[in-house]
Order: sequence, then structure tokens, then C-alpha cells
Amino acid sequence: MTKAEAEIEKLGKKILNEIREGKNPSMEVPIRSLGTIRYDENKRCLVLEKKIAKRYFFNVSHIRKFVQTVAVAALSKELIEMGKTSHLRDVYYRLVRTIPGTNIDLVDDQSETDRCIEDLELMTGKLREELHINAKKSGSVVGNVVIKDQGDVIDWSALGSGGWSIPSNVENIEFKKVDADYVIYMEKESVWERLHEDRVWKKLNCIIMCSLGQTTRGIRRLLQRLNKEHGLPILVLVDFDPWGYYIYSVLKYGSINLAHLSEKLCVKNAKFLGITADDIERYNLKKHFIRLKDRDIKRIDELLNYPWFKGKKVWERQLNMMKKFKAKVEIQSLSSRGLTFISERYLPEKIKNEDWLD
Amino acid sequence: MTKAEAEIEKLGKKILNEIREGKNPSMEVPIRSLGTIRYDENKRCLVLEKKIAKRYFFNVSHIRKFVQTVAVAALSKELIEMGKTSHLRDVYYRLVRTIPGTNIDLVDDQSETDRCIEDLELMTGKLREELHINAKKSGSVVGNVVIKDQGDVIDWSALGSGGWSIPSNVENIEFKKVDADYVIYMEKESVWERLHEDRVWKKLNCIIMCSLGQTTRGIRRLLQRLNKEHGLPILVLVDFDPWGYYIYSVLKYGSINLAHLSEKLCVKNAKFLGITADDIERYNLKKHFIRLKDRDIKRIDELLNYPWFKGKKVWERQLNMMKKFKAKVEIQSLSSRGLTFISERYLPEKIKNEDWLD
Repeated sequence: MTKAEAEIEKLGKKILNEIREGKNPSMEVPIRSLGTIRYDENKRCLVLEKKIAKRYFFNVSHIRKFVQTVAVAALSKELIEMGKTSHLRDVYYRLVRTIPGTNIDLVDDQSETDRCIEDLELMTGKLREELHINAKKSGSVVGNVVIKDQGDVIDWSALGSGGWSIPSNVENIEFKKVDADYVIYMEKESVWERLHEDRVWKKLNCIIMCSLGQTTRGIRRLLQRLNKEHGLPILVLVDFDPWGYYIYSVLKYGSINLAHLSEKLCVKNAKFLGITADDIERYNLKKHFIRLKDRDIKRIDELLNYPWFKGKKVWERQLNMMKKFKAKVEIQSLSSRGLTFISERYLPEKIKNEDWLD
Repeated sequence: MTKAEAEIEKLGKKILNEIREGKNPSMEVPIRSLGTIRYDENKRCLVLEKKIAKRYFFNVSHIRKFVQTVAVAALSKELIEMGKTSHLRDVYYRLVRTIPGTNIDLVDDQSETDRCIEDLELMTGKLREELHINAKKSGSVVGNVVIKDQGDVIDWSALGSGGWSIPSNVENIEFKKVDADYVIYMEKESVWERLHEDRVWKKLNCIIMCSLGQTTRGIRRLLQRLNKEHGLPILVLVDFDPWGYYIYSVLKYGSINLAHLSEKLCVKNAKFLGITADDIERYNLKKHFIRLKDRDIKRIDELLNYPWFKGKKVWERQLNMMKKFKAKVEIQSLSSRGLTFISERYLPEKIKNEDWLD
């Protein structure tokens, strides 16, 4: 029995005992709200303060969530026992039903099951992936790494131009060989194809990994595992704009939604490789300024208020330069210096000089 | 020398000769406009009627495009010679520059270089991938197939839970072994993970492939090659909504933008596997109706006017049912019948009965 399964069983047995003893069945759910989430200076990530709410069966304002949570827990246990996984959307569809003898639907909207899955993560202390419920799949990876996954031995260095397609759930991947000095993680698949074609991973002895925009949980876990289990530094390559900086921020410090999972998802010693305001000066990229919109400026101000950026000179300088420029600069603008400039000069130079932000 | 390179050289030599002979240098560019694009009943796809416009150097309204096209052609030739590829965005950045001795920028906006790349495709009769300029990368694939790509031999059946990450350019992939009866292509990566986990590709002896939303050119080419070179039927699995049906429509008949490439991109005998209005009745999915918005209804009416759907009873029936239901149904709603219902009943049943639309 997996630990997640044992936790679910514990929850079920507790409720069953309360029923047998004629008590009001209940469960203890940690509260997630802006009031219970804070930045922990020592842990260097968002954390959830432990405040518990009791959810009762015999309570008209609790019963709906109570029953939904039990249904999600039962489905998760079934999945684990079957050795199957599922996705958020399918869990919702699986649980939509009218409760027999009533005209009440167990679930009306996916937000309800999503919320219950988060509650179950909190109550069991397990990731939803360990509960066999997966999020989005996205991204590619290559490098001198051999893994074992579902009985297959996969060599990340021998997958042609495509690379390995990163699954939504990487919990059961076994690393057989990791021969790389660090990981370059980027937000754009076209940049990844550039670096792969130029064999940057071979020349610099690193792993290159990309997603499409925001980092999926699968990628966050993969980066964290490479960092924690194999000591690889994670270097982040994103656009010089608030959205790129936000990708870095979430990867390193966590997000409000998933604050309860920071310990399992955050890559606490990730470094910001680029694009920085200094890169723009040094590599003469000002001619590729793209004017910021009002919502971009607003987003920069929000970032400036994040406790891990606020009062940190390095970050205030970057974000204030962005405001001063009133412009963003894309990674691909480096192509103006030559198509392989990023592979042959920008990255080797930055990495040799350890020219990253922390 | 590749054929694409030879075509570019031919274009260059023609212009050079005209310069030497003191003529006004020119190029012949096929015109793309709604007036030159039509549906060809025999070819069963959108085609571009050949109407040529001459673009001259000594013509104030032509010169900008003329010079841009020559610059794109030169870059493409350089890429081919270097054995490198590039992306649309990088091509734009590569060509942004102020023409020496003037205050004129060669390119102001990516739409200009994109347009020139399309012109070059038309003039050379080559795909932009053959011109070494790539589009988006997205999607995953597994199945009993072995390919060779960039010197690596890749077994699509031994890639763990992730599968092979499909590159943006599949022109140089060599198929070493294709042991499958057909391809199931779907628009959702979570459905793909469901089918992969259930080993549908093994049980039904097929290839499963997914993208995220609209099909990339890389995937369209990969599907076309599997269909043309290996005779595999392509079965399309999308939501019952106008956007899902549009994915099928583009895959099979082409799109206005890329009408000149229909022959190289369209999978002319693709079949529509689901979700159909009949599936909704048969598998009792009406309880999972999601109300259509006004723009969805508008989109259905546009689809009903496509020459390949208009007057075709099969398709008018589907699209009119969608309007009658005023609702869409997602693939994942099949999960309401059981998480593996799609793998164990829906797909085997549909495929055994050859229950698809054409």
C-alpha cells in the first residue's frame, strides 16, 4: 500500500468509526486563504500556516463539501488500487451524478472537484500526483541522462530532434544516469529547438528543458528532483517582461494557489539566467524594445510587492529598469546578433561568468 | 544541393542576370487572395489558382517587398548551407536592421517576414520546413514505430509515460519500422495520457498522437507522411463543438492561409472518429451538455458554409444537431461512464464497427 493510499484509508476509517459510534462524522481541513499564506524568510518560499477547519457531515453548510471530499478520496483510492491515473477534468466528469432518490447533483462544476482534490492534498500531505490525479502535460527535454519509466529505459541524449515529451506525472521516474552540470530551463519551445540543434546540451554538458509558457507541475517536480536528488543547479531563461519574471518567481518561491505544496514544488535555489536589463545593454538589444501595455506595468508593480523581490536591490533594479524602459525584450531578439549567437556566445559567456541573478 | 537550395539559387541568378543586362529586376509571385483560393472537388482540398503578380525592384510600391523577399531567400539559403534551421520569430529578428546610409528599416514587423516566407514557399514550390524555417513545436506520440532522426534510432513504443516529443520539422525523419494499423489523432494531451496509460496503442495496434489545440505543421506533415508513405488511416478524435470540427476540417481540407500547401499538408482521407451527435445519444452524454456561446453558434454557421460540408448530409446533420442541442460535449465526458470507458469500450466499439464520418 502506498503512503497516499494509507492516508486515505486512515481518513475513511476515522469517518467510519464516528458513524459507528453515533457521532457527527467530521474531517479536519487546513484552511487556505490569503490570511493563512505567508512568505517564510527561512524556508525561502510561500508557506501555509496550519489553521484547521472542521468539516461536519451534519451541518447544512458543510455537508456538500464533506460528501464531495469523501467521493474524491474514494476515487483516488480506487485509482491507486487500479494502478491508473486520471486528470482533473475526468475526475469532475467521473463524479458528476444525481444522488439516488434525490434531485441533488453531487457536483455542479469542476471548481468543486478541483477544490476537493486540493483539500485532499492538504489532509493527506500528499501531492495530487501521488493521489494519482494529474495536471497538464507539456514540455520537452534532452541531455546526458538515462531514466527508467514504466519499464522503459530512456536515453534523453538519443531522441532525435524531438526529445522526450515530459509527462504530467514524474513521481515514478527513476534516474539511472545523470551526467550533466546543470539544467537550462526556458519558457519557449522555439528557443529549445535552437539550443538542441546547436547541441548546446552536449557542448556545455547540461540538460535543456522547455515548457509552453507557465511551468506545469510535472516540469516543476522534474526540475526539483534533478536539483534535490542530483544537486543540479537550475538556470531559468525567460523573456525580459513581467510574465517571464513571474515564471521564475513561481518556480522558485511558489504561488498562492499551491502554497501548501511549496516544499514539494519549489526549486529554492533556481537562478535567473536571463534576459536581464544588463543583457539588453551588453548585447545591444534596445533596438528590439517592444512597448509595454498598461497591464504589463501593473504586473511589474505587483511583482515589486512580492516579499521576495521587495527590498532586494538586485530585483528592484531589474523591475524598475523594465518600468524605465517601458519595454520588454524577447529571448529571440538575440537572433539579431546571429542565429546561433545565443548558443555560441550568450549562454557560454553568461554561464562561464556565473552571470545570473539570485 | 537540396532542391530548395537550387530553387533559391535559380531565383537569385535570374535577378542577377537582369541586373547585369540593365533590366528592371523582377520576381514572379503567385497571388494569394480569397479570389484565387477555391475548393477543388477532385483534389478534395483547398487549392490556389495560379495567378502570377510580377514584383519589380524599380517600383516604389514593390521595392520594399522585393528587397525583403530577397533577404529572406538569402537567409534561407544560408540556413540550408549551414545545416541549421530557424523559427519565424528568429527570422524576423535576424532581418531587422537599418539599411546602411538610410534611415529605412528593412523590416518593421514580423508579419512582413512571415509573408515573405510564404511568398518564397510559393515561388520555390517548397515547404518552409524545406527552406529550413520552422513553425511551432507541440505534441506527443507513441506506437509500434521505429524512426531514425538525426542519427538517433528512436522506438516510439519504449518511451515511458511521456512519449516522443514531436519536433516542428519532420521532413528528415526516416521510418525504419511501422507496425500499426492506423493512427488516432486527438486534440487533448490529457486524453492521450489516458489512452497511453491504458495501452490502447498496444491493444488496438495503432499509433496515438496528440497536440494542444490546433494541429501544428509538424504534426500535419507527420500524419500525412504516415498516411501517404505507409497507408495508415488517420482517425480524428476531438470535442463535439465547432472548434473540434474545425481542427478536423483544417487537417483534411486545408486552410485559407496555407491553401498553396494543401497537397503537402492535407490528410485527404482522414476520418472523423468522434465525438459525434450519435455518440452523445448512444453513450448517454446529454447530461454533460455545456451551453454554446453566441460565437460558437456563429462558428457553426461558418462551418456549414464550407464547400466540403455544405450540401453533405452527414456533416449538415452533425452541425445542425449541434445547433439544435445548443450545446457542446467534451471527449472527457466519456469518463462519466468509467475512467477507462474510452479505452475499453468507446474506441474499440467505434473502430470495430468502422463508425466514423467521412
